Order: sequence, then structure tokens, then C-alpha cells
Amino acid sequence: MADKLKVAVVGATGVAGQQFLASLPNHPKFEVAKLAASERSAGKKYVQAITDEKGSVNWFCDEQLSEQYRGMLVEDASKMKVNDVDLVFTAVESDAAKQLEPIYAKEKPVISTASAFRYEDDVPIFIPGVNMEHDELIGVQQKKRGWKGFVTPIPNCTTTGLVIALKPLYDAFGIQRVLMTSMQAMSGAGRSPGVKGLDILDNLIPFIPKEEEKVEIETQKILGKIAGGKITPADFRVSATCTRAAVMDGHTEAAYVSLKKKASVEETKKKMREFGKEFTALKLPSSPKNLITITEDPFRPQPRLDRNAEGGMTTTVGRLRKDNALENGVKFVLVSHNTKMGAAKGAMLVAEYLEKKGKI
Amino acid sequence: MADKLKVAVVGATGVAGQQFLASLPNHPKFEVAKLAASERSAGKKYVQAITDEKGSVNWFCDEQLSEQYRGMLVEDASKMKVNDVDLVFTAVESDAAKQLEPIYAKEKPVISTASAFRYEDDVPIFIPGVNMEHDELIGVQQKKRGWKGFVTPIPNCTTTGLVIALKPLYDAFGIQRVLMTSMQAMSGAGRSPGVKGLDILDNLIPFIPKEEEKVEIETQKILGKIAGGKITPADFRVSATCTRAAVMDGHTEAAYVSLKKKASVEETKKKMREFGKEFTALKLPSSPKNLITITEDPFRPQPRLDRNAEGGMTTTVGRLRKDNALENGVKFVLVSHNTKMGAAKGAMLVAEYLEKKGKI
Amino acid sequence: MADKLKVAVVGATGVAGQQFLASLPNHPKFEVAKLAASERSAGKKYVQAITDEKGSVNWFCDEQLSEQYRGMLVEDASKMKVNDVDLVFTAVESDAAKQLEPIYAKEKPVISTASAFRYEDDVPIFIPGVNMEHDELIGVQQKKRGWKGFVTPIPNCTTTGLVIALKPLYDAFGIQRVLMTSMQAMSGAGRSPGVKGLDILDNLIPFIPKEEEKVEIETQKILGKIAGGKITPADFRVSATCTRAAVMDGHTEAAYVSLKKKASVEETKKKMREFGKEFTALKLPSSPKNLITITEDPFRPQPRLDRNAEGGMTTTVGRLRKDNALENGVKFVLVSHNTKMGAAKGAMLVAEYLEKKGKI
Amino acid sequence: MADKLKVAVVGATGVAGQQFLASLPNHPKFEVAKLAASERSAGKKYVQAITDEKGSVNWFCDEQLSEQYRGMLVEDASKMKVNDVDLVFTAVESDAAKQLEPIYAKEKPVISTASAFRYEDDVPIFIPGVNMEHDELIGVQQKKRGWKGFVTPIPNCTTTGLVIALKPLYDAFGIQRVLMTSMQAMSGAGRSPGVKGLDILDNLIPFIPKEEEKVEIETQKILGKIAGGKITPADFRVSATCTRAAVMDGHTEAAYVSLKKKASVEETKKKMREFGKEFTALKLPSSPKNLITITEDPFRPQPRLDRNAEGGMTTTVGRLRKDNALENGVKFVLVSHNTKMGAAKGAMLVAEYLEKKGKI
Repeated sequence: MADKLKVAVVGATGVAGQQFLASLPNHPKFEVAKLAASERSAGKKYVQAITDEKGSVNWFCDEQLSEQYRGMLVEDASKMKVNDVDLVFTAVESDAAKQLEPIYAKEKPVISTASAFRYEDDVPIFIPGVNMEHDELIGVQQKKRGWKGFVTPIPNCTTTGLVIALKPLYDAFGIQRVLMTSMQAMSGAGRSPGVKGLDILDNLIPFIPKEEEKVEIETQKILGKIAGGKITPADFRVSATCTRAAVMDGHTEAAYVSLKKKASVEETKKKMREFGKEFTALKLPSSPKNLITITEDPFRPQPRLDRNAEGGMTTTVGRLRKDNALENGVKFVLVSHNTKMGAAKGAMLVAEYLEKKGKI
Repeated sequence: MADKLKVAVVGATGVAGQQFLASLPNHPKFEVAKLAASERSAGKKYVQAITDEKGSVNWFCDEQLSEQYRGMLVEDASKMKVNDVDLVFTAVESDAAKQLEPIYAKEKPVISTASAFRYEDDVPIFIPGVNMEHDELIGVQQKKRGWKGFVTPIPNCTTTGLVIALKPLYDAFGIQRVLMTSMQAMSGAGRSPGVKGLDILDNLIPFIPKEEEKVEIETQKILGKIAGGKITPADFRVSATCTRAAVMDGHTEAAYVSLKKKASVEETKKKMREFGKEFTALKLPSSPKNLITITEDPFRPQPRLDRNAEGGMTTTVGRLRKDNALENGVKFVLVSHNTKMGAAKGAMLVAEYLEKKGKI
Repeated sequence: MADKLKVAVVGATGVAGQQFLASLPNHPKFEVAKLAASERSAGKKYVQAITDEKGSVNWFCDEQLSEQYRGMLVEDASKMKVNDVDLVFTAVESDAAKQLEPIYAKEKPVISTASAFRYEDDVPIFIPGVNMEHDELIGVQQKKRGWKGFVTPIPNCTTTGLVIALKPLYDAFGIQRVLMTSMQAMSGAGRSPGVKGLDILDNLIPFIPKEEEKVEIETQKILGKIAGGKITPADFRVSATCTRAAVMDGHTEAAYVSLKKKASVEETKKKMREFGKEFTALKLPSSPKNLITITEDPFRPQPRLDRNAEGGMTTTVGRLRKDNALENGVKFVLVSHNTKMGAAKGAMLVAEYLEKKGKI
Repeated sequence: MADKLKVAVVGATGVAGQQFLASLPNHPKFEVAKLAASERSAGKKYVQAITDEKGSVNWFCDEQLSEQYRGMLVEDASKMKVNDVDLVFTAVESDAAKQLEPIYAKEKPVISTASAFRYEDDVPIFIPGVNMEHDELIGVQQKKRGWKGFVTPIPNCTTTGLVIALKPLYDAFGIQRVLMTSMQAMSGAGRSPGVKGLDILDNLIPFIPKEEEKVEIETQKILGKIAGGKITPADFRVSATCTRAAVMDGHTEAAYVSLKKKASVEETKKKMREFGKEFTALKLPSSPKNLITITEDPFRPQPRLDRNAEGGMTTTVGRLRKDNALENGVKFVLVSHNTKMGAAKGAMLVAEYLEKKGKI
């Protein structure tokens, strides 16, 4: 236990923060040393902090709440000291992240699920196995801001699956344009207020505020080339329509891709299958065996059936076929687990990589 | 009553056939003279034919089953004579349609919801207000086949909304390509076996067999130009991904359109708003006031909230905005009622038009 | 129009208040003269008051929002004068009702959907056709409180269907005990916060705070005998388990009843069928033709299929059969529309009755 | 491996049979030696037998299909020899069970999920930890029928949770009557045809054919006393209303119990908590640590949140409270996993017990 890194989980009482706690017990590299949340929770035992006035324990993960966290005292995130931890995971709203993360980053590495710093020039948005070479920016960031630590956010959960599926195509064939329609799970909207039952039953909601812009910009940045301490965004256009469906977890995305070079369906499938082997060969604790899983079942991927494949850490791609409307077009459907690879577990995998590489 | 046209409804016991019966009571132009179905139902009173062995009356429409049809005897569709009716509505599976429709069409006009004849050169696929000039093909068909009547199918229910939304854009600006992802209602799959509850709850199914091909081909044919008794399909490419969602009725479609001529969002919206005024001016009994309804609510259209607008006969278009990935791109979301405008009521509106024009 | 009663709708922007507005256009006896809501909405046009910051018009009824109300100014309920109206409908939370209703009732009749006054000795809880003789209490109330008007609430929406089904049994056979398990629609929980999609999909929630007590107490009071200006609660015990299901509208209730006198299934059915004929003979505008509709389909009643029967104003009872566990036991399942008969339209029907009887 | 018992799984391709295969890999006592199904599947590899004509692998369990079963050949159940196995698990429809089980039972023990033999005098219906002393009947059955093996079915999945919750109350206080309303999961209806999506979305179905009778009779038999090779059914009345809800797995049941002796809520809770300790002390491989889990959260148990507690093998009881309508009344809500403890895993636990006791 002595050699595990001590981590703080900020925003520990919220849905995203709980996902960290669901995944951290028995982690071979990290141990939870601190829990922090808003002032309202500060000073309470964790289990009390998530118990509401009606007596319900609001723990929302499938995994049981570990005994080791139940009795931990929750600190006030705005007053938390980070000098005695090695790493901070933040899972708070963007406004809070904007305030808190720079304070922590002065001293320690911060891996964040929030969007607050995603669009800063000196901040990489990591997807494990996709753009880890962007870690070059960490030094740039530290130098520019005078921080001993740093901030590295993960992308919006809808971006994650899309970029993972695009990366092998982009590397092998180049991309001209991408059009994507998502059917997103309710858990992506959180719980306060989240999606109302009266709004989603027997229904779909065709708009998620700010989501499409995030997907479009983040995709270009993550697939961008880094050189001289600067990312040049990928030079293809992305267009998204993001909708909400009556699904608990797992974002489904129907993508149309115009490649630069012509490629057969089999060739694109092969590139996807082979993708990320160097990364998965690191056998990081939270890593899937395959970043992409190809399904040949014509009726798959389906969110309920495929979201939990490889612990929610693989992106399942199916219905890969020729698209006749775009030049060198291919189209496919993917399912990515928005609260696993797309959130806390994805952030943990980033941290595991950075630890391995000596950046943490 | 004397001057109403006598109609036969074939496949009257099925879901699609019931939709005809739901809409025909009190129709100012048509009265139901005959009901037909498979041999199994023949000779029974209608209400008995739809009552199962457990005693449930399997009537699936929101509208009450009209008293006037409850006691009507159901005929065997394969033996039904059409000499004493003026018009036949068919709502049977494609295989049955292939056999039955030519028999009826020898004598009488047949308006069909089945796909059996959609792809024949001499058969128009009508969408009311979109391509009624294709009625020129009726004479060609009669001559070629030696029929006194004719067969005119309506399109697949997923095609209907898409083509209605595209038509004003096509006429005003031309179209280079269309990419569409649908999230379709369960009623489109019928009831035997239809979509299983265990398959669709907390889930989406990303594939509907044969649906994408139908949408792609039918769209080109319906928007094609007719000249010299021949339709030349529209010269743009259509690519579809058709998925099934946990929605009762109403297909939602996210479309991306590359126009030939550049057009602003406001211009495309204007063309959609103005669309079809000549057709709606006919004030046909089943006609909506507007073929397209534009919503400015960013969270609309939603299938549950918008499917029943104008009796399920208008196509609601929302989220009309610029698309940056395609040349002269616009994108939008539409909702179209798959069992109203997309099925029986759409077929009735075709019949009303043809009657008005003296073709029936 | 001159002879219509002028009504004020208080809480007009909420879900329950909207239900009044959905039902009042074209009402032969009532016309809306005032709309009131909280201070936040005061001074706005109605359509603006229900439009949120994202631009969505939050109108939640299936019926279209009538043009006549869109532009009406909303008043502050706490300052509204009632001298120029004849009748007040209130649809606000219990706390607000406790404050507002006495102010209005000083001058005018108040028909309320709130629970604030339900349990006062001098306040009747009306269910149309069940206990209208309790109107004797109105005079008692006015005298005791020195009001020119009065307050008469309708019951909790779960009580309504149960009591309607019990009333003919109680009158004919007497009742020893009633046990009821409800599976209630989400609309009963309103929208703020209402039931979360994440909580109800693929799930049931077995508890609704305070609901069971309301059902138990209200049932006894409504079926109580009035004499000498005092209601003696019915002398049988009621036990309820109230659960929430993934249903939009329509409460389903499984009831077990121990009668005082033995009765066959056919006799109980007959009493239910005959029930309320004097009341329905009044042909009040919102009245169903039958207070109870018996279904013989073994798979009915179902909330989606039966909630809208007779405009949501009839209680559909099915599966009426012998219960072997209770003395003289019968059991059945009922569906009652919680936001129609169980809310605004039920309150309107009460008002129509009282108007007819000269009490308003 | 040499000392594991060889088992045959009959009906291996169906949903219930798959549940056996989901639970048997790595079982310390049993290994699958044979798979059998209908003639249609015979001779195929297992994975082919569950692959449909569209290419979908119809494996319906959350657990992955184990590699060890994928390639096993499926036998024709009607021709399968059992001489080389030690135990047969059957998961077929009642009609097939009636024919097949006696053939197998001539030679070997048959643990069945089917109802075919449940109501025979010499056949015990086992619920693990509840009535294992009914194993006395096995000898009676063998003698009477001249079998070397025997047939012991488990109960209907709705009976299981109810009886487990009743048993400690029955033993400690006696029971006068039980009234129960269930809200059952769709998986209980299987897949052919199962529950249609169009029937269950935004809905409930208040009737499940034959279910209520099964619950009523089986409860009495399972809680009956055995003496002299004969079960005397428990002498209290059970009345059930069984409904279907839009839930994947996990039956929810609201029970009302009239005890013989007065007992406080705390006393009943204590008896439930202490229940079954002798059985769980056996630490059988599929056994939960607690047959009953009491929840104090007023909003629990919920099927989605509680069905998988202890691997789906515990019955979660909540909302235990006084019932005022019955003499010595208590009421509560329970959730029991219908396809785990209520089906295959329950049958396995029975087998594990009988093996331990030397009956297999």
C-alpha cells in the first residue's frame, strides 16, 4: 500500500464523482486519500453526505459503495489542501472546475472530467490510446502557467467513442468530413435536474445544449498534430446532431465518414481491429484488451447489450458498410459507455498512463 | 351517401388495415363497402375476426372501432370481387400484395401501403403534394398491363417525412447529397412479431432490415422528373442509417443535406414554410393545412409531442441550421407520423386527390 | 356569453392548472376571466409565463393551448381580487393553498385540487356522483368561518378511482375492509422535480410519500354519512400500497374488498354498471355517460388503452372476480385518469354540479 | 474435475436454459456434460443452434456465453440418454416437461423449472432454505413410480419471493391470510412471443394467464407440513393479482399479511433477518449470505436497484409496516430476481443442497 499514489476525488458526491469511487477500490496504483465536495457536504461522513432528507442513500453506481469510503470525511473542495496527495481527480461542473482546478494544479496533477480547460491552447484533451503524444503540452502548460502540477481534461463523453472509431481511419486513409448523429443515454445528463421521466418516455429529445459544438471542436483538437508545443487541429469538418433517448447508459452514434483515400469495408474494419495494440500492450489496470471491438451481428451494437463490454472501456463498432452519398464514404454505428470510458474510468486510464510514463 | 365512392379495405384486420378503418368513418367521399383479410378471418364478423382466443379484442388504434364496421362480414381477400366497389385500399404484406393487387387492378384502382409494386417502372409512388404529376404513369401502366384499374403504392413510412422535407429544398436550390439517420417508432414494425419489449426497453436497435435501401431508392424515384411516360430518378445520392427506438408512433429523422446552390437557413426555412400551398388549397378531407410545420423550439420536434400535429398529416421540421461538414450544408430534424401520413391516412389522401382529378 | 360564470384559474402555469385551461375553452357554463400564478409569472402574458429561458413553451397537455389564453395577463395569486369573478379554481401546492384559498373563499366559491383543507371537519371532499349530498357542509362551513364563499377540494387522484369503484359495493353490500395496491402514473408527481428518467426506466418505485395515508383517510370521509352538519367516516378499514410505474397518465389500482354481505361476481358487476345513473342523467358538460365502465377483456383495463375512455372521466373496472382470502371477498383492477377525472376535469364537474344546484 | 457431477441441461437454447449455462461455468460441483433441446436444434453446435437466420446470436444473459459451451453439440431432448450423467436440469415448456421428465427420472434426478409435476402429491416443490424437509417425498415418489431418479420442480418465479418472505412469519406467528399484488418483469414471459414493446411501453398489463392460481396453490403446498410421506398444505388463504410492468428483470410484490399472533413491525423484521441461517451456513456455491435482505430505505426495494443483490439470490424486503385493514396485519414490498433465484440459479441451489445431503 505504501507505494500507491494518494488521490483526491473532488465532486465525490455527484454522479460523476461516484463513478470514480466505484472504480477505485482495489486499484493497484491509486488509493483514495481525500474526498471533497461543495461546502454543503463538508464535514460529513461520505455516506451521510449522499443520504437525502427522506433517508435514501443516493449512490447511483451498479457497483456497491465500498466500505472504505462510507466513513471518510468529506472536505470542502474550495479549501482542500493538495500537498499530501499525489493526484487529483475532479468531477465537478464547469464553473466550479474553472475556479478549483488552477488552485490544485499549482501543486499537483489534475485529471478532470469537466470542460473548463478543454479549449485552452496549452491543455491536451486525452483519450487513452488515441493522442497520448499530446502529453508534450504538459510541460508547455507548466512553464506558461508556472504550475508544478497541470490540468488535463478528458473530452465530452460523446466525443470519446467517435474519436476512437475515427482514429485508425484517419491515420490510414485520411478523413475529409464526418457527420454523426448520436442517441445519447440519460446518465449523460446527470441527475440535477437530468432528464424527466415525463419528457423521455415514449419519446426522443432532439437537442442537447452545447453538445454538438463540443463534439465538433474536440474531435478536431484530439486528432490534431502536435509540434513545437502546439496542436494543429485536424483539417476535416465534423457535423453532429445530438439527441437524447430513453436509455440508461451507453451512447449510440451513427457516423458517416468521407475518407481521403478510397478504402474497402474490409480494409477499414482491419484498421479498426488492429488499432491501439501498443497502448493495450501496456496492460494498464483500467485498459480494455481492445480499444475497438468489431461486431458482425447486423443488429448490433446496442447500448444495453454492448455498453458493458470489457468493463465499459471498449468502443463497439458495427454495421460498418459503404456509404454511397459521400466520396470514399463509409458508415457505421458505435456504442461507447458514457460514464465508464467516457468519464471516470477513462480519466483513470489517462492517469494510469501518465503514471507509467513518469508524468505523475 | 349515394354519391360516395364504395371502397374495399384489404388486410382490414391487421394494424395497417385498422388505420384505414380508424380514418374512414364519416369520410365525405368514401364509404366502406367491403372488408377483406386472409382465409382465416373470412366469413367472420369483423369484431370476431380481431378477437383472439383469450377474449381480447385486438383493435390497436386510438380511435374507437366504429359501430358500422363491427358487424361487417370479412371476405377472403383472394376471392373478393371488386366489380361492385370503386376503389381498393390494400394493407397487406408485400408477398400477398404481389398476388392480390394485380387481380384487383384489372378492374379497379388500388391504393396500396405495400412495397410490392413500388419499384416497377410504370408505377408511381405517390406522396400527396410532392409528386402528383407522376399520375401520368397511370395511363402508361394501364396501357402496358391491359388493366382498367391501376396500382399506386405509397412509400415506406420512413421515406415520407424525408421526401416532404427535401422537396422544397430540391426545387429551390437543388441537392447534391442527403445523409439521414432515423430513430423509428415501434409501430412501424407491426405486431407479428414486431419489436419485443425485452429487446427495446433501455435500448436502441441500430438496424431495420431492407429499410435503408427503400429510403434511398424511393427518395430518388419520388423526386424524379417524369417525361414521356418515364421517371428519371433524382440525381443525388441518399445514404440512410435506420434505427429503432422505444417510441410508440412517429419517426424522428436527423437529416444532413448538401445543396447545389448556397442558401441561408432563413431561405431554406422560408421555402419549407411556403411549400405545398397549391396542394393544401384543394382542402382535401385528409389534408393538413401545412405539409411542413416549422418549429422554432430548440428542443422540438419530439415524436410524442409532434406526431399528432394536424391529425398526424404534417411533417414537423425543427433545428434547421447550417451544416459545416458538407458543401452548402443544412441540417435539421423532422418528425413524421408513420402510421398516419406515412400509411393509411397518406394513402387516403392520395385517393382523395386522384378522385378530385377524376382518376378514380 | 353573458350568462357564463366568470372563473379564475389559480396556479395556471403549473401542470394541474394547465389541465383546467385545456378543458375550459368552449365550456358552456364557464369562461376564464382571470389567470393567476406566483409572483414570478405575474404581469407576463400567459404564453410568456410558460416559456422557459431556453425558448421552450412548457405547455404539457395533449390539447392545444387555446388562442384565447395565450395573451392573457397572469396576475399575482397573492394579490388577486375575486370580486369580479364568480368562481375560483385553484391548482397550487398545499402550502400555497392554505394561504390563498381562505382569502378567496371569504368572497367566492373555491374548487380546489389541493389537499390543504381536505381534512377539516367542515369541508367536504367531493367526487362527482359519489357524495354530492355532502354539500350540506357548505352552509356549515360558511357559517362557522363567516365566509360568503367556500372551499371544496377534490380528493387525491389515487382516491378518486378507488372510491368510485367502491361506492356501489358499499351501498349495496356494505364493506368490511379494502386493500389496494396502486401503480401510479408519472404525471401524478408533477414536473418539479417529478420523477427522474434515470429512476423510473426499467424500474418501479414502491413508495409515494404521504399518498397511502391520503387514500386511507379520504376514502373513509368521502364514503361517510352526513347528518346534522357532520360527516361520520365510513366504518371500514382501508390499507394501501402506492407505487410509481413508467406510465405517463392513468393510475392502475388492484383492489381487494371484503364485503359485509355475500355477493356474487355478477351481482357486484351489476351494481357497478348501474351506478351513478341519476348523476349522469344530469348531463353536465364534463360528465361521462358512465361513472364506471366494466371491461370483460381479461387483459384490461390498461392505463394506455383505457385512461382516455369517455374523455378520461370514467373509471374502467376489469378482472372483477372472487377473492378467496377475505370474507365475502371480491377483487378487481381499475384504471382512472389521474389528471382528468382525478384532477382539473373532476373539479370542473364538481363545479358544474354545484352550479346546477344553485350553490354557485 | 473428476469428482464433479455430470449434468445435462435440457432446453438449453431457450431463455431459461441459457440461465443455467450462464451460471454453470466454474461451478465447483457440477460440470455440463450434455446439452439438449428440440429436434430443430439437434446436431448443431450450441452457438449455431442459438444463431438465427439473420445472423444474430440469440444469447440473452448478461454473463458472456462461456467458450466451453459454444462448440458442444446439442442433442435431441426426446432421444437423449441419461445413463452417463448424474443429474438433469430441465428448462422446457410444461407440455414438453410432462413427456420428457418421467423418461429421465426413471434413471436420474431431474431438477425442473417447469410446472408439469408441481401439483402431484408425491412431488415436492423446493425453495432452498424454506422446505428442504420435503425431500422426504423423494423416496415416496421413487417407490410409487418405480423410478431410480426423481423429479423435483422449483416453483413459479412469482411464488419464490413471496414464500421466502412469508416463511419466517409463518413459523413465528402463524398466518391467517395473504393478499399479494405483483408487478412482474418482462423476462418472466420469455421471448416467444413474450411481451410486445407496443403493448408494454407507457403501460401495464393487469393479467398473466394462470399465474395467480399457481402462486396461490404453490404457496400453500411449499409452506405445508410433511408427515407420513404426505404434505398437508398450509391452512391459510392466498389471493394474488399478477400484473406485468415495463421492467426487464426482477418481480416486485406488494404483500398484505394477516398473522395469527399479533407481532410488532420490529418483531417481524427480526424474524426475517434471522431467517435461514442454518441453510446459509451450509455455504452452498449458489447460496446468498442472507435469504432475506431488509432495506430501511423507504423508496426501496426497486427492481432495477435490488434484483442483483447477492447475485440475484436474496429476496429484498422493504417498507415493512403495520397494516390496519387486516387482523394482526403487516404489509411490505419485496423484490426477487425471477430468472436467478426464481429460475435456473434457484434450481441449481436445490441441486447443490440435495447433493450435499446425498440425495443426488
